[in-house]
This record gives sequence, C-alpha cells and structure tokens, in this order.
Amino acid sequence: MQAAYFEGRETFRVSDCVPVEPGNGQVQIRVQYCGLCGTDLHLFHGAMAHRLTLPHVMGHEMSGTIAAVGAEVSGWKTGDRVTVRPLDPCGACPACAAGHSHICHNLKFIGIDRPGALQGLWTVPAHTLHRLPDELDMRQAAMVEPIAVACHDVRLSEVAAGETAVVIGGGPIGILIALVAKTRGARVLLAEVNDFRVKLARDLGIDAVNPRGADLAALVGGRTGGAGADVVFEVSGSQAGAEMMTKLPRTRGRIVVVAIYGEAPKVDLFRFFWRELKLAGARVYEAEDFERAIGLAASGALPLERLITGVVPLEGLTGGMRQMERGGDCMKILVSL
Amino acid sequence: MQAAYFEGRETFRVSDCVPVEPGNGQVQIRVQYCGLCGTDLHLFHGAMAHRLTLPHVMGHEMSGTIAAVGAEVSGWKTGDRVTVRPLDPCGACPACAAGHSHICHNLKFIGIDRPGALQGLWTVPAHTLHRLPDELDMRQAAMVEPIAVACHDVRLSEVAAGETAVVIGGGPIGILIALVAKTRGARVLLAEVNDFRVKLARDLGIDAVNPRGADLAALVGGRTGGAGADVVFEVSGSQAGAEMMTKLPRTRGRIVVVAIYGEAPKVDLFRFFWRELKLAGARVYEAEDFERAIGLAASGALPLERLITGVVPLEGLTGGMRQMERGGDCMKILVSL
Repeated sequence: MQAAYFEGRETFRVSDCVPVEPGNGQVQIRVQYCGLCGTDLHLFHGAMAHRLTLPHVMGHEMSGTIAAVGAEVSGWKTGDRVTVRPLDPCGACPACAAGHSHICHNLKFIGIDRPGALQGLWTVPAHTLHRLPDELDMRQAAMVEPIAVACHDVRLSEVAAGETAVVIGGGPIGILIALVAKTRGARVLLAEVNDFRVKLARDLGIDAVNPRGADLAALVGGRTGGAGADVVFEVSGSQAGAEMMTKLPRTRGRIVVVAIYGEAPKVDLFRFFWRELKLAGARVYEAEDFERAIGLAASGALPLERLITGVVPLEGLTGGMRQMERGGDCMKILVSL
Repeated sequence: MQAAYFEGRETFRVSDCVPVEPGNGQVQIRVQYCGLCGTDLHLFHGAMAHRLTLPHVMGHEMSGTIAAVGAEVSGWKTGDRVTVRPLDPCGACPACAAGHSHICHNLKFIGIDRPGALQGLWTVPAHTLHRLPDELDMRQAAMVEPIAVACHDVRLSEVAAGETAVVIGGGPIGILIALVAKTRGARVLLAEVNDFRVKLARDLGIDAVNPRGADLAALVGGRTGGAGADVVFEVSGSQAGAEMMTKLPRTRGRIVVVAIYGEAPKVDLFRFFWRELKLAGARVYEAEDFERAIGLAASGALPLERLITGVVPLEGLTGGMRQMERGGDCMKILVSL
C-alpha cells in the first residue's frame, strides 16, 4: 500500500508503507476517498508545524471499508463501510468531564496530531467510527466530515424554519452551512467575494451575493422589514467578516463564529450591547452531528456531487493543493486511494 | 421648584423652572433623590451632544412621590411612592414587535433624549412607573435603576447557584452585578484596577482582586480545577477587559458584555471557536428586572447604604461630577432635591 508523506516545505513523497496492525480497541480501514480540507492546505503551507511529527500523513475527510479489526472491538467487522470522526479526546479534563469531549482541553485531532487518511490502510480507534448506509456513494461519503461541521454550526445556531440566516464566506464549509440551514427551512443568503463561488452557490440553489458589489446590511434589512437577520454565520475569518457580522443581525440576533482567526480582529462590542446580540463559537462536531450528516448525505437532500470539483490519485496531491491555493475555480477535491 | 440645567461645556445652571403639567397618560413626580451615573458624567464631558437639546436636564436614577396625575392614567394617585424605568419605546419598530421594546430601534432614553429627574417636579409617561414598597428607604430607592441594570445582566447570564462568575470592572454596576450574582448563589470574583474600589468591594463582602497584581486567569483556573469560569461579566469597557474576558471562561462558558465601548476593541475570536464560548450583549433592563431590583432593595439583601458615598444638594451637582471624574474615592453620589 501507499501513503502520502508530508515532509514539510510544501513537499509530499508518495511511497510504500507498512500498514499499522490494529491494536486493542482499534480497526484498520481500507481508505477509498479522502477529501482535502483548508486545514490540510494550512499544514502544507507550514502552519501548526509544532503539532506534526514529520514525515506526516494528513487527511481526515474520508470513506472506506474495514480491513481488519483489533482486539476488544465489538460491533464492527471486516467489510463494514465507514467514515471516521477524527477526534481523540483525553476523557479526563474538565471539558470531557462536562460532556464536551469534542473540545477536550487535550484533544488530539487525527490527521494533524496523529497520522491521517492519505494512506491505503489507516488504523484508528474504533470509537471514531460511524457506519455508512449502503445507499450512500463512497465519493459523497468522503464529505460527511465537512457536512458534520456544518450540522454542528447550524445546530448551535438554533436556526428555525422561516428564519433568515446570512452566511459570510462561501468556501466548502460556508456552502454546506447554507445548504444544511436550508434543509431546516431557513431563508439563507450567502455572501462571498469570489465570483466563481458565488456562481457555484447559485447553481446549487443558494441565494448568493458578492458583498463587494452590494450593500449587504441594506439588502438584509430590506428583506426583513428592517429587523435584520435572525442568524449570521461568520465563516470568512477576515476582518471584513468580523465587521459585517455585527451589522446584520436583528435585536437579540445570533452570530455563530465558525472561522478560525489567526489574529484577533476588531469587533464592534458596542453593537452587541446596543442590540443585545449573541455570539457562539462552534468547533468541529459531536457524534450526533456526524449521524445527522450521514443521514442528510444519504437522503440526497444535498447536491454533493456538484461540490466535488476534482478527483485525483495520490500522486496528484500536490497538484490538488496548488489548485486550492489558487482558490477560485475549485471547491472540494477528493483523493482516490 | 428648581432644576439643574446643563448648558454644555461642563456647566450647570441651577434655577427656578415652571413645572410641566402632566398630560394624557402622564404623571408629575416630586423627585426626592436622584443618583448620578457614569452616563451623566459622559454627557457632562460632551458625549452624545447630538442627542441633547440644550439646556438639558439630566438624571434617570431616582425616587419620589406622585404630585399630580394626568388624564387617562389609572392605578396611580397623588402620594404614591415611585421610581421610573426611563425608557420610552416607539412601539412600532421590529424590536418592539418582537417584544424587545427595551432595545427599541427608536428608543428614547428619558434623561438623555428627554428631560430627566434633576428637577423638583418631573413629568413622565405613566407606563414608566414602578411602585416602591413602604419599607424601602427613599435614598436606597434611588438606586433601583442601576440595580435593575445588574438584575438584567445577571438574568441574561443565566448564572446558577454554585457556578463561578468573574466580574471585570468594579464601578457601581460591576459591584451591583457581583452582589446580585451572589444572591443567586454564584461564587463571585471581582477584578478591579482601582484599589479604593477593591477595598470597598471587600468591605461589602465581595471577593475582589486587583488584576494588575495577580494572574487572573491562573487564579480562576486554580479555583475551578482548571476548568475556567462559568460566567464572565465584562463591565470595564477597556481593551484589557476585552482581552481578559476570553481568557477566563470554561469550555462553553458565557460572557456578558455590559460595558459601552467607544471604539471596537480587538477580540480573540479564535478563543470563541476553540472553547465554544458564548457572548451576549446586555443593555438596560426590562420591567421584570425593575421588579426584581425593587424586591432585592426592599429585602435588605444588598448593602446599598454603603454604596452611597455622598449626598449633595442640587447646587453641589458640579462638585459631584468632579468627584466622579477623579474616580477613586467615590461610588454612588445622590442629589437630594
């Protein structure tokens, strides 16, 4: 079997590797597809280097079948179709004790802190597994992880049918949030500065605008009788997004911060006071978000095939990263193993 | 009767004035005490000048008795002991329609947008009245308005018995928040950079520290088994407070922003993501907060008399402002009318 080894300095080496036998509580998975994520691109660019042991195997959005089952694993057998919720919490910290193991103080993210899925045979703890229904295509199943992110964000937003939601940022996560919020009956507007992505979003049936050519606050005000949006998702991670997020909500409206900010932006705390706005941070997902994501993916309610803008072999990994780097004309790239 | 007319440029003129007869739906109140607020000091310094019609009568923290009742007012009679919830909402905007009339889009704040209580006879809409119980001293009753602010903030925080709350900023509102949170059974720590206020807080039975001489995050971590605070109230309005507020909460901990920020501070949105923190802005109060404040004040559960650091006549108003300006050795100053 082969693996893609990241050696730092934007370099992958694809070569044979010896599969890790599953130990106690572990399973070995034959990986079929692995999606590339913005986080992988950040790692490729040198971010979070202190968390990596080089050479490092990335990848955490995947689908596959169980190839071998270790000792003390029940409920799983060879051939089961699965995806992985790539979180390994400590189980002992205050966050775990409070039931928030997905934001464990010592969380290990599989694919960053541990070897990831860009290898033919991947060994993971059995507690990370989620079963894939037979009707779910394995390409689409590789998107369960980012859909679960969106399900988590939308769940924390408490958006309800008939409410108006604005999504700031139309990358894969922003688009998935828009799609998942629509399945809950929300009226969704997506703001994205890249015209390729605006067009793709519109092709997917999402109401999308480029905020550089529109007065977004006036647009949202006009659509809500002057009230403002019920929910705003900030997915851009930009200063402009941090400014916009406080201009759009109604009194007591909710903001969900999904984006990962490298630097602290300026935030209009006066507006929080003035309109009694609420903000919640949302990180990764919990088990119920994965189950919801699998259900949504299998139901056909999401146009997943149209989000997949490329499928490359392991040798095409660097090319895929370069395409993501250029942004613009790509959305989700899968690696076929 | 006399009134204190603010003429701009840090100047009050105390002179006779003709009382306004109460019209339809209005009552005229004989004002007994009126507290000075940080907002009044801001007005004195020239802030919000566009909202004032000079000469302007300030004042919105008061106690008094009804002197005259206008037409179409029921339930009130001459001699009734009252305080005023100084909000005049439009009743027609989306916020009013949604039941958030205290943050009405067109809210008129009585004492800023309308004449306030620093006059012997004050005419206000009857819908602003709250009845004072006989056992509540009129000096202490003049503090119902800031206590209602604290009740609102604490209610929105959802702080529960046994939870750990940190209050950043120990002025009158911060101290009242600490006291009200304690009545709900919270374990409260107050952080204040002014040593006079730290000492006063301690004298009132509040656990208080000067964060300039302590590692507040380490202190809170140590007291919560490494978890962090359940609730943080940001009352300082400072960049340092905006930075501290994200360092202290536990995973999914709540931050309530009470302070009024003149400029947008830098806020660590990454920390919101990382710990799934929540933030809510809190502004003024609703009717139920006033009722709760009156109940707390009348119960004797709050050491209000010790928060009153001075009582001055109307002619002492400028001196009172100067004392507040110097900060430090004063807390709540009342004007006796």
